[in-house]
Amino acid sequence: MTSDYRVGLLGHGTVGSAFARLLEERAEGIEAATGRRPVLSGTLTRGDGEFHEILERSDAVVELMGGLDPAREYVAGALRAGRHVVTANKQLVSRHGEELFAAAAEAGVQLRFEAAVAGVVPVIRVLQESLAGAYVERVHGIVNGTTNYILTEMARTGASYEAALAQAQRLGYAEADPSEDVDGRDAAAKMAILARLAFGTPVRLDQVPYEGIEHIAPDDLEYARDFGLGLKLLGTAERVDGGLSVRVHPAFLYPGHPLASVNGPYNAVTVESDAITEITMSGPGAGGPQTASAVLGDLVSVMTGQDAPRGLEAELEVVQDVASAFYLHLEVADEPGVLAQVAQVLGLQGASIKSVVQKGLGNDARLVMVMHPVAESKFFAALELISGLDFLRGAPRAIRVIEEEFV
Amino acid sequence: MTSDYRVGLLGHGTVGSAFARLLEERAEGIEAATGRRPVLSGTLTRGDGEFHEILERSDAVVELMGGLDPAREYVAGALRAGRHVVTANKQLVSRHGEELFAAAAEAGVQLRFEAAVAGVVPVIRVLQESLAGAYVERVHGIVNGTTNYILTEMARTGASYEAALAQAQRLGYAEADPSEDVDGRDAAAKMAILARLAFGTPVRLDQVPYEGIEHIAPDDLEYARDFGLGLKLLGTAERVDGGLSVRVHPAFLYPGHPLASVNGPYNAVTVESDAITEITMSGPGAGGPQTASAVLGDLVSVMTGQDAPRGLEAELEVVQDVASAFYLHLEVADEPGVLAQVAQVLGLQGASIKSVVQKGLGNDARLVMVMHPVAESKFFAALELISGLDFLRGAPRAIRVIEEEFV
Repeated sequence: MTSDYRVGLLGHGTVGSAFARLLEERAEGIEAATGRRPVLSGTLTRGDGEFHEILERSDAVVELMGGLDPAREYVAGALRAGRHVVTANKQLVSRHGEELFAAAAEAGVQLRFEAAVAGVVPVIRVLQESLAGAYVERVHGIVNGTTNYILTEMARTGASYEAALAQAQRLGYAEADPSEDVDGRDAAAKMAILARLAFGTPVRLDQVPYEGIEHIAPDDLEYARDFGLGLKLLGTAERVDGGLSVRVHPAFLYPGHPLASVNGPYNAVTVESDAITEITMSGPGAGGPQTASAVLGDLVSVMTGQDAPRGLEAELEVVQDVASAFYLHLEVADEPGVLAQVAQVLGLQGASIKSVVQKGLGNDARLVMVMHPVAESKFFAALELISGLDFLRGAPRAIRVIEEEFV
Repeated sequence: MTSDYRVGLLGHGTVGSAFARLLEERAEGIEAATGRRPVLSGTLTRGDGEFHEILERSDAVVELMGGLDPAREYVAGALRAGRHVVTANKQLVSRHGEELFAAAAEAGVQLRFEAAVAGVVPVIRVLQESLAGAYVERVHGIVNGTTNYILTEMARTGASYEAALAQAQRLGYAEADPSEDVDGRDAAAKMAILARLAFGTPVRLDQVPYEGIEHIAPDDLEYARDFGLGLKLLGTAERVDGGLSVRVHPAFLYPGHPLASVNGPYNAVTVESDAITEITMSGPGAGGPQTASAVLGDLVSVMTGQDAPRGLEAELEVVQDVASAFYLHLEVADEPGVLAQVAQVLGLQGASIKSVVQKGLGNDARLVMVMHPVAESKFFAALELISGLDFLRGAPRAIRVIEEEFV
C-alpha cells in the first residue's frame, strides 16, 4: 500500500493548468517510479483558495503564480514550514535566491527551480548535480526563445526587427509587451541564476549588464554573413582574471560554435570546463506544457528525496570590463583617408582591425570591420571618438563577436 | 569537523588514473559542496591490491576496470556488501544490468553509470531524473565518437572509409582494433542501456539489430548532398505500435535535425516526448578526463545521498520490423526501361520512390533515389529482387533516411 504525495499548487494560469493536467496524466507512472502517487491537495487561484489551508495539507508546494508579490512570501513561508518547493519563477529566484536558499537549508527542505531557466533544457540539474564536482570556466546561453526566433527570422528572410517581432507576436512567441524579452532583461535574470549555480557565488541582477536586440538592422546580419558569422542574443558567465563576468548582449558566433546552429524559439546552454571540454543542451524555450514538464521532473526529485549538493561557496568579484572582439559598422562619406583615420582612433585605444570590407559608394559608403579582442572600455572610448568624426553619416553600430579559440 | 568519504578505485588505466587525479584536484571543492572530503581508500590495479580489503575500507566503489570478468563479480559483490557503486562499464551494464539493478535495490544502495553512455553528455541523469515523470516517445543518439569522426571526415574531405579510419587512429579517436566501434556493436550496447532507462523495460543486447559504417562509400555522401542530407551512425529507441524498437544503423538526417550539426568525435542524444517536444544534449565522446568527470559527478550524487527513481516498470515487446525511409544507390546498365523495372519491383512491395536522380552515362550510370517510408522487411525483400535484375552492375547500396516529420 502506498500513501498519496500531496502537492499544493499556487497559480492556475497557462503553466499552472498545464501542470495540473500533466500531473494527473502521469500520476500512475510516477507512482510506479517512486512508490507514492502525487495528488493535488489544493489549488490557489486569483479568486479562490487560501494559502495557509493549502500549505497545511501539502507535502510539497509548487509555485507557478509568477511575480514577486505574494510569491516571495508564499515560497519563503512554505520552506520555513518544512515543505519542499518547486517553482518556475525566474524573477523570484534571481532577486531573492539567497534568502530562499538559506530558508531551504535551515529547514532541511529542497527548493528546485529547473523551469525558471531555459524551458525544458535541464541545465539547472546538470550544473547542480552532474557538474557538482567540476570547475566550470564558462557558461554561454541562448536563454530567451523570443529573441532567438526574431533573430532567426531576420537572418532567414531579411526582415526588419519590427517585422520579425510582429511575426513572433502573431505566432505566440512574443508577448504583446515584449520589452523584457527584447531588451535583454529576461536573459539577464536567467544568466544571474546560472552564474550563481555554475560558480557558487551570489550574483545580483544589477551586476549583470545587458543589451537587447532592438537596434539590430537587417544589413548587420547581411554583412556579417560575409564574415561567416551568425547572430544570437548571448548570455555569458565566465571567469575573468580571478573574478566573474556575467552579461547579456547580441553576439556574432563563428559557424562551428555549438550555439550557432540553434535556431527558432529554442533555448540552449553550453557549459565549458577543462575536464569536460564542453556540454551543450538545447530544447524549446518556455511554453506551458514544456514548463510544466520541467516542474514535474523537479517534483519527482523532491518526492524521491534527492537533494542537490549545495553550491560551492566562493566569493568571486563580479567584474564589468572584459575583452571582446567587435564587429563595427560605420556609414561614412566616400572620401580618401577615412579608413586611415578610423584605424588611427581605434589604434590609440589599443583596438586593432582584423578584417575590413568597404561597401557601397558615395552616399551609401560603409566600412564594415571585425576587430581583434580588446577591453570593452577602451573600445567604447574609441567608439565615442569615432562618433565625433565629421565624415560619419550615422551612429556607429557595434556588435560583439565570439571567435573560435582553438584555431 | 567533517569525516572523509572513502572511495575504493578498481582499475588504474587511462580512465582510472585520470579519475584519481581529478578526485585529488577537486577534493576541496567537493568537501565544500557536500560536507565530506572524498579520499581514495585503495586502488586495485592489475598487479596490486586485494578487492576484499579495498571493499572493507570504502564507503563507495568506483569500477573503471572495464570488461566483464572480474568486474561483474566485484560490482555485484560491492552492492551486496552495501556499498554504492559508480561504474563506466557499458558492457557490464548492458549485459548484466538487471542483475545489478536488483542487487542495488535489495541492498538499498545506488548504482550509477553516467560515464557508460555518451561520454560527458549527462543523458543518464536527465532520463532518470529530469524526465522521470515524462512519457518518452523516442531517443535518437550519436553514441559513438569514433564513427562520428570518421563520417564527418569522409563528408568534409571526400576521403574513403579506410583513409578516414586511418586518420582517426592517428589522432587517437579510433583504437588499433576498431571493430566494435565501426560495426555498431558499441553503439548497440549503449542504446540498450538508454532504452532501458527511457522506457523502463529490460532490453537484451540480442534484441538490438545493428549495422556499421564499413560499407559507406564516399559517393553515398556526395550524392546524398544533392538531397540535402548528412550521414550519421544513428541509434534509435522508440515506441512502435505499442512495442519498442531499438536499433543502430547509418542514417541520413535532414538538415534541420538536431543531430545533423553534431560533427567530429562528439556524442549527442535527442529525447522526444509530447510534453517537452525534444531535448538535445551533446559533448565530446569518451576520453580519459571526460569519462573521469562524468564518474565524479556520479560520485558526488552518491555522496549527497541522492537516489535516482527506479525506472517505471513496463513490459514492452521489443519489435524488429519498423517502417523506414531509404536512400537507394544502384549501379545500372545505361539502357531504356531500367528505372521503370526498379520502380515496379519496389512498388510490388509497397515501396514508392520519393525522388530520384540519374547520374553518369554508359558504364558509370547510377540511379540514386530516396524512398517513402515502408516496412523494412518489405523494402529488403524488394532489394533482394532488385539484386537479381540483370542490368545491375553491382550490389545495391541502401541507407536509412530520417525525414522531417512536421513539414
